[in-house]
Amino acid sequence: MRIGAGLLADPAAYAPLRGRPLRVLTDAQVAAHYLEPVLRNLELPADAALVLPPGEAQKTWDNAGRVLDWLLAARLPRDGALLALGGGVIGDLAGFCAAVYQRGIDLVQLPTTLLAQVDSSVGGKTGVNHARGKNLIGAFHQPCLVLADTETLRTLPPRELAAGAAEVIKCALLGDAPLFARLERRLERVLALEAEALGEAIERSVTLKARIVAADERESLDGGARALLNLGHTFGHAVETYTRYATWLHGEAVGLGLCMAADLSARLGWLAADDARRVRALVERAGLPTRAPAGMTPEDFRRLMAGDKKVAGGRLRLVLLRALGEACVTADFDPAALDATLEHFCAPGCRVS
Amino acid sequence: MRIGAGLLADPAAYAPLRGRPLRVLTDAQVAAHYLEPVLRNLELPADAALVLPPGEAQKTWDNAGRVLDWLLAARLPRDGALLALGGGVIGDLAGFCAAVYQRGIDLVQLPTTLLAQVDSSVGGKTGVNHARGKNLIGAFHQPCLVLADTETLRTLPPRELAAGAAEVIKCALLGDAPLFARLERRLERVLALEAEALGEAIERSVTLKARIVAADERESLDGGARALLNLGHTFGHAVETYTRYATWLHGEAVGLGLCMAADLSARLGWLAADDARRVRALVERAGLPTRAPAGMTPEDFRRLMAGDKKVAGGRLRLVLLRALGEACVTADFDPAALDATLEHFCAPGCRVS
Repeated sequence: MRIGAGLLADPAAYAPLRGRPLRVLTDAQVAAHYLEPVLRNLELPADAALVLPPGEAQKTWDNAGRVLDWLLAARLPRDGALLALGGGVIGDLAGFCAAVYQRGIDLVQLPTTLLAQVDSSVGGKTGVNHARGKNLIGAFHQPCLVLADTETLRTLPPRELAAGAAEVIKCALLGDAPLFARLERRLERVLALEAEALGEAIERSVTLKARIVAADERESLDGGARALLNLGHTFGHAVETYTRYATWLHGEAVGLGLCMAADLSARLGWLAADDARRVRALVERAGLPTRAPAGMTPEDFRRLMAGDKKVAGGRLRLVLLRALGEACVTADFDPAALDATLEHFCAPGCRVS
Repeated sequence: MRIGAGLLADPAAYAPLRGRPLRVLTDAQVAAHYLEPVLRNLELPADAALVLPPGEAQKTWDNAGRVLDWLLAARLPRDGALLALGGGVIGDLAGFCAAVYQRGIDLVQLPTTLLAQVDSSVGGKTGVNHARGKNLIGAFHQPCLVLADTETLRTLPPRELAAGAAEVIKCALLGDAPLFARLERRLERVLALEAEALGEAIERSVTLKARIVAADERESLDGGARALLNLGHTFGHAVETYTRYATWLHGEAVGLGLCMAADLSARLGWLAADDARRVRALVERAGLPTRAPAGMTPEDFRRLMAGDKKVAGGRLRLVLLRALGEACVTADFDPAALDATLEHFCAPGCRVS
């Protein structure tokens, strides 16, 4: 993986790909800014790219079928590669298609959002959503190359930048306490894309994730380390399913999920109440939501979380915090505490304390 | 993998599965004979099984989506397993669904056709067809358990038994010359399901395939051993695509493909003309077709073979014979010889010589 400013505009960055049969999947927002230089540097014609509408709602089984139809019509051979130019939606969808096209071809990630650069382009998880939940269909498929151009974040809407920051905060919370402290000091400088603060946040997040993935590439069911990366995600996925992937960004749902995981950890007595408040304060500073969507009830959460992939042996497992910088996966918690957390975040008057 | 008579009716055979969340995919023909004992031995209710219509036309992307919808509606957890009770179509479709359901769950193969027992249930290839070709979408996903009950072959239509024999002949041709000689002596006893002849044919085929797969699990592009298992398949897939997976069984197309590969090998001077005739004679004794479908032209073959997965760097690669029992993968052959083979097998008067 290469991280740097201006990589997409640098012909040398594409050297490993030149001369190979290639296709590019992207979305209309990203294409407007970056498709032309990518195609030019790879000497590809315009019809080597498929441009989807933007948004999480594109990440469907039916769309994967359409992408595969397009790759087959183009007769991309097994020694070809599919490039994912965009954010997490494009990366996950292209990754899944690369995983199953002719039983697997090479995948190249060109992440253009903070979320994709720190999280979804790293680790090999690919997939599509289903009406019953997020990422319920997919595959593990590692990219053969990742080029993370931090310049692309300059065209990112502030809301998407904040969504990416949620994954940075997540990494800090689950395994990098010093990063959490640094974010408390200078989160605004990361969000302003100041090179040093931004570079540190991305590199530390990616390093942590890569270390965890290396220890447990396929997310083993019996307590492997990889499940820790789902901190905040079980709550977050429920929100995304409830809102039909249409109104909340993934990172926004994760931001709320981090607050809920910290709150539950505090109610269980595992985390100091003040630390849970620090989590919620940082999430709020990032501009992320800290209460459930209007109308969503504790019962909605319970129903949607019961369909989560992390349910094993009929018991809901959650990633919770033992301290800032230390997470654990457990099904062994008091359901009454979970109920209290759900009530708290669904209450109409719920506010950051 | 266990091979034996009466395994499906033996409660002890299911011991590794008891107590796990399970679902069964099967087809109506197989269900009529074997679904009840399988469900009974696993103590599963009737709605734990999804019964599809029989036939290769079921192996589609859309049907995979339907199976996944059904698994998600049943909330099969990640530590559950999907059982494939049936032939190659059910095994490939269930295998693909198990590979991508929640990024992969356990797969159990209960093959009920000779083709599935000697070939498709072994080696981890899963997938669905596409209008542009066979198995163009799929994944590598090894079963956690295979129970091959040879008793199930007694209810198999003779045409399907012959189709399975094509894969046995293929194994003999590509790597087991003594098996080829034994088949020449007693193919009819295998087809009559005489226990000793049948057991030998299945075990030798499975052993050869397992050895080849172990050396090259994901069919590497640069001349790995696994590609040898495609002997006869590039021709065969063209026939199946041409006939829209509707009229020819996979094994029937492979049978013809074996004759074509042997014929081309002889035209190239790599195989004795008499050996090519022995291949064709054995395929015909199995009751398999030895000429192209009515109306299919050499140009149809060339067009459909160009979309094959084995095309790399723009060149068609074929598995050809150096001798009976010795195959090789090559893109280095005289195209005129291929044209002559195609003309020969497409000629209206084409007959076994």
